[in-house]
Amino acid sequence: MVVKIYGHPTYTSTARVLVCLEEVGAEYEVVTVDLTKGEHKTPAYLARNPFGVIPALEDGEFKLFESRAISKYILRKYKGSGSDLLQEGKIEESSMVDLGVEIEAHHYNPAISPIVYQCLVVPARGGTPDQKIIDASVEAASKVLDVYEARLSTSKYLAGDSFTFADLSHFPYTHYLMAGTPYASLITSRPHVKAWWEDMAARPAFVKVAAAMRA
Amino acid sequence: MVVKIYGHPTYTSTARVLVCLEEVGAEYEVVTVDLTKGEHKTPAYLARNPFGVIPALEDGEFKLFESRAISKYILRKYKGSGSDLLQEGKIEESSMVDLGVEIEAHHYNPAISPIVYQCLVVPARGGTPDQKIIDASVEAASKVLDVYEARLSTSKYLAGDSFTFADLSHFPYTHYLMAGTPYASLITSRPHVKAWWEDMAARPAFVKVAAAMRA
Repeated sequence: MVVKIYGHPTYTSTARVLVCLEEVGAEYEVVTVDLTKGEHKTPAYLARNPFGVIPALEDGEFKLFESRAISKYILRKYKGSGSDLLQEGKIEESSMVDLGVEIEAHHYNPAISPIVYQCLVVPARGGTPDQKIIDASVEAASKVLDVYEARLSTSKYLAGDSFTFADLSHFPYTHYLMAGTPYASLITSRPHVKAWWEDMAARPAFVKVAAAMRA
Repeated sequence: MVVKIYGHPTYTSTARVLVCLEEVGAEYEVVTVDLTKGEHKTPAYLARNPFGVIPALEDGEFKLFESRAISKYILRKYKGSGSDLLQEGKIEESSMVDLGVEIEAHHYNPAISPIVYQCLVVPARGGTPDQKIIDASVEAASKVLDVYEARLSTSKYLAGDSFTFADLSHFPYTHYLMAGTPYASLITSRPHVKAWWEDMAARPAFVKVAAAMRA
């Protein structure tokens, strides 16, 4: 029985989970939830996630939602396959992974996601991007990325010298920032951030999942 | 050497960490950071947390920030003291804890915190609460709490039958909602949510930390 992911590969939260599955080499199946048809608000989907957002996981009898919780489940379950992206069992190391994920969720994404939304999603829906929102978000993202640049000048990855979930979790929005907006220089103008991103973007798991994303 | 927490006990993020320390019975010291004096933006504090927000942890040579990352560090380090609030080592159980914490961070707090801010913080600063914001947040919180009511009708706690960090992490904002706003009925009108909250609020760790919070 393979892991089933209910979601859509073009959405960042689904892409986060798919990169985890690819990194650990798990067998999985994506069950497409078409948000344009409201499939995330059907009783069948709401039984999987009562908040009506994607993705959701089904692994035999076990069900779970929230992309970061699903990601950790996958990384724990397949830890024996050679990767140890959560560093669990090592108190300080696992806490540094937590720190990187918290920063991603509460500082990085809130600054980057409005840029992606305005530059990529709004025009795709026939709208005009709000430059004021973009400018404010670029300013916020610059400050966050200055912290990243300082951090990445002392260690190769965010949680230390190993690639972990703290890095991986940044992939979906950074991919769209780089591939779908004119603000890639937020990353490329900072040498250590640029090297960090290029290293991650070249990983086979990332290349495969990126191919199924748009832009 | 005791754990040092740089923060302020009236702030929700600091309170989250302090409840963890009390739950596990750790010795600790709070080093007060006075935000009204801008102490969170001094070079000394920014060296602890480059984003300039509280709290930050110092445990010997180890330094950490972000309240949920600090909380997990404490719960891991003192796991042997009898509590196992993260359920690490058990794949499904620990993932249910993650799920509860993600829901708290991404659904519960975004609905509850504006109510607390408008009813408690704004008047304390001499302003007038924005009733439109309150009304929209009460509506959002109602939907979130309907999900909690359904969940808590099938298990005593959010991640199952044991009290975990998924429950604990809800304490700071719920305390202020109950003690400092006229919207306690969001909790008390839902029988299972009410019982869940009353059970938690009676824990000695919560009683002690609540005494140092305002309202």
